Amino acid sequence: MDHSEIVFGILGNAFHCPVMGEFEYLENALITVDTAGRIQAVLRPEEYQSSGIVQALEGQGRLQRLTASQYLIPGLIDLHNHAPQWPQMGKGLDLPLYDWLSNYTFPLEAKYQDLEFARQVYGDLVQSTLSSGTTSAVYFSSLHLEPSLVLAETCLDKGQRAFVGKVCMDDPDQCPDYYRQSAQQSLYETETFNHAVAGMKGNQGLVSSVVTPRFIPSCTEGLLKELGQFATANDCYVQTHCSESDWARDYSQQKYGETDISVYERTGLLGRKTLLAHSIFLTNQDILIIKDRGAGIAHCPLSNMCFANAAMTTRELLDQGVHCGLGSDVAASVTPSMLRSCFDAVTHSRVREEGTSTHRPAGERGESNTRISLVESFWMATAGGGQSLDQNIGLFKAGFGFDAVVVDAAVPDCDLTIWPGMDSPADILEKIISTTSRHNVTRVWVQGRQVIDKKTAG
Amino acid sequence: MDHSEIVFGILGNAFHCPVMGEFEYLENALITVDTAGRIQAVLRPEEYQSSGIVQALEGQGRLQRLTASQYLIPGLIDLHNHAPQWPQMGKGLDLPLYDWLSNYTFPLEAKYQDLEFARQVYGDLVQSTLSSGTTSAVYFSSLHLEPSLVLAETCLDKGQRAFVGKVCMDDPDQCPDYYRQSAQQSLYETETFNHAVAGMKGNQGLVSSVVTPRFIPSCTEGLLKELGQFATANDCYVQTHCSESDWARDYSQQKYGETDISVYERTGLLGRKTLLAHSIFLTNQDILIIKDRGAGIAHCPLSNMCFANAAMTTRELLDQGVHCGLGSDVAASVTPSMLRSCFDAVTHSRVREEGTSTHRPAGERGESNTRISLVESFWMATAGGGQSLDQNIGLFKAGFGFDAVVVDAAVPDCDLTIWPGMDSPADILEKIISTTSRHNVTRVWVQGRQVIDKKTAG
Repeated sequence: MDHSEIVFGILGNAFHCPVMGEFEYLENALITVDTAGRIQAVLRPEEYQSSGIVQALEGQGRLQRLTASQYLIPGLIDLHNHAPQWPQMGKGLDLPLYDWLSNYTFPLEAKYQDLEFARQVYGDLVQSTLSSGTTSAVYFSSLHLEPSLVLAETCLDKGQRAFVGKVCMDDPDQCPDYYRQSAQQSLYETETFNHAVAGMKGNQGLVSSVVTPRFIPSCTEGLLKELGQFATANDCYVQTHCSESDWARDYSQQKYGETDISVYERTGLLGRKTLLAHSIFLTNQDILIIKDRGAGIAHCPLSNMCFANAAMTTRELLDQGVHCGLGSDVAASVTPSMLRSCFDAVTHSRVREEGTSTHRPAGERGESNTRISLVESFWMATAGGGQSLDQNIGLFKAGFGFDAVVVDAAVPDCDLTIWPGMDSPADILEKIISTTSRHNVTRVWVQGRQVIDKKTAG
Repeated sequence: MDHSEIVFGILGNAFHCPVMGEFEYLENALITVDTAGRIQAVLRPEEYQSSGIVQALEGQGRLQRLTASQYLIPGLIDLHNHAPQWPQMGKGLDLPLYDWLSNYTFPLEAKYQDLEFARQVYGDLVQSTLSSGTTSAVYFSSLHLEPSLVLAETCLDKGQRAFVGKVCMDDPDQCPDYYRQSAQQSLYETETFNHAVAGMKGNQGLVSSVVTPRFIPSCTEGLLKELGQFATANDCYVQTHCSESDWARDYSQQKYGETDISVYERTGLLGRKTLLAHSIFLTNQDILIIKDRGAGIAHCPLSNMCFANAAMTTRELLDQGVHCGLGSDVAASVTPSMLRSCFDAVTHSRVREEGTSTHRPAGERGESNTRISLVESFWMATAGGGQSLDQNIGLFKAGFGFDAVVVDAAVPDCDLTIWPGMDSPADILEKIISTTSRHNVTRVWVQGRQVIDKKTAG
């Protein structure tokens, strides 16, 4: 074996999910990382023991050994995060969506033209998401070009794999006067932003721009078409909201006599690199189209519980093989942690399966066999997110980017506790998903670069 | 003003909820604590400024000043916690209840006859709940006397206000052979436990014993009657599970032709000091009886989502003035934090209000006007819990026990962030409820005794 292109190796216990619904426990595995930040090899003890590679790397100071309390998991992928809403997190999640947007969100998003404010908030956001184990994040920025560039630069500087969109909203019927641009200006700034992000110094594909019509009600048809043309011509990522609520679904029907998916498809916005947040009220035809185009869905469970009027049909979408990952939907969340999103996706699916009304008989209350498992939700936050983004991330596999997180159960004053002799690997993974706090995340790498190192006692 | 009986004072910003659904922000308030650990006075600046009391206490080294990033909230009250399930927390919450109990819970609970194991687990549990801000906890212990005493002693030693029950289960039809006692043994150990807890050295009312029939299916009618007689004769606390699921409700109907509440009432188990966990499937008559007897309900939202088949009618119970607090239902939870329970109660009520099935029209999906607010859930975890326990706790009010928690937003690497000039007192309280982690809880007092002091940088 040629060790010359290996930059470093990690030796320890790791979990990942190569197959949806199953997990693989890599006990005492050696993962080596090459000069491009990719995984060079994933070796089990029987594969590395006789090769001398561990000793060679250790002798050169290029081996990191995990302790028995530390577990390596793939970097977590957040497919939907409203960056400018970060200071709003934790406020008003008991309000209806309209009040929440009008009272908190739009006035806050408009503030980012103050670039010093943008730098302060985005610095804290990106640091916090990385510190929670989010190695890849798909961000809605705000309406304006310059603060969106601040966000992209912050991600590049801190080393987060990021997909950043300048938000487009031009329809005077649905957007407040103080927070709206003309279609022409939206397109111009989208083009400028796309060019600027690609040209950021040192950006070798870590940060991508995303064409971002907010959602159908906030955009004129003309703008949707222009953005669709631009995205198609330039092979851009696209993100938007899709059929999030009764109101949003009805709006498209009333304005266009079509579903959201039909409008996005017709305007050139639906392709392999499109991310559809929410997607609660899909028709069977919508699902076939999404699957055929290879677009991805960002399931945002807590936001779904608070704002979406009904539960996403997660079970059915996963079973049909639609690309599907998880989103925090900051600030319709209370933490940037994607492990919390994993857990919320499971509990929400259990509530969906059982139903809620005590006034209905059990058989007419919920929707049978629609729960998802903890391991399935963990797949969504890792491999499923990578698949949705059409990126080789989310697994420990040769050729994939080394995006990884150390979860340490020995950090003091945390809920995550592994009891000696009482927890199987399956139990440990479930505890990691269910009880990891930000303090348990002690080391994080993105594309081979270490971006978090907490130097804890653990 | 006579300061002689004041042991110490705390000066800073505090939140509490004297009225259900409203909060009071005590800005720069002085709270003084007497020799019995009770609140002697709660003074606003205009009430203390001219008295010289601040200067007097400070001069005697008996004043603690909170910083601007620190907020005092009432100690949190957990009305339902299965202590022996602590090592199980975070495992298998995607399983059906029957599998969860058979595969994990009963075998684990049986282990506590190993008292060294009991000491280890209960030490960690009580430390963790205190460290999360739980100043009062109502515990189910296990079937056996000695480990139940270990739990009671641990609470007393660490200074937690605790209500501890040795679990009674005697029906061979529903209890595994390895985890069951005769009715006679159950009653004998209940009596012995009650006597021993009252007589623990130094126990001046901090730790109480609780008569604890597990639930109707696990107990014979004879045992229920014996326990009811004992509880009535000795004015004991009682705790049990009530109408938690379709199965549990149907079981009582099939065995007795009655509801759980009817059985508990008839057997003498329902009174002012009774705590009913869950209480999902209540009839109107049940609710009238609970209210009339003054019993309390422990709403356990996450457990409700995972295991209860339908949503508790929290909105209606609160509106009818039924005593109602929150329970973690460890280990049907992923954290001991009662603030997480507050948040889960809100999201679950939102899902209940909206419904889940996309196949139903909006008007037939959920149950209108059934959401609860963050401030209502916070009331439940504090004042509502105190009311349910018939104890003067959960508020900053003269004569109440000084059970209090400092939440510090300046602790590094935490989600809770207050943005200067952007967050009103209402926003701050909502952020505290929604985003506080265990690390933000830096100081805790129970009945005037400081039991947690993290000495953080904040």
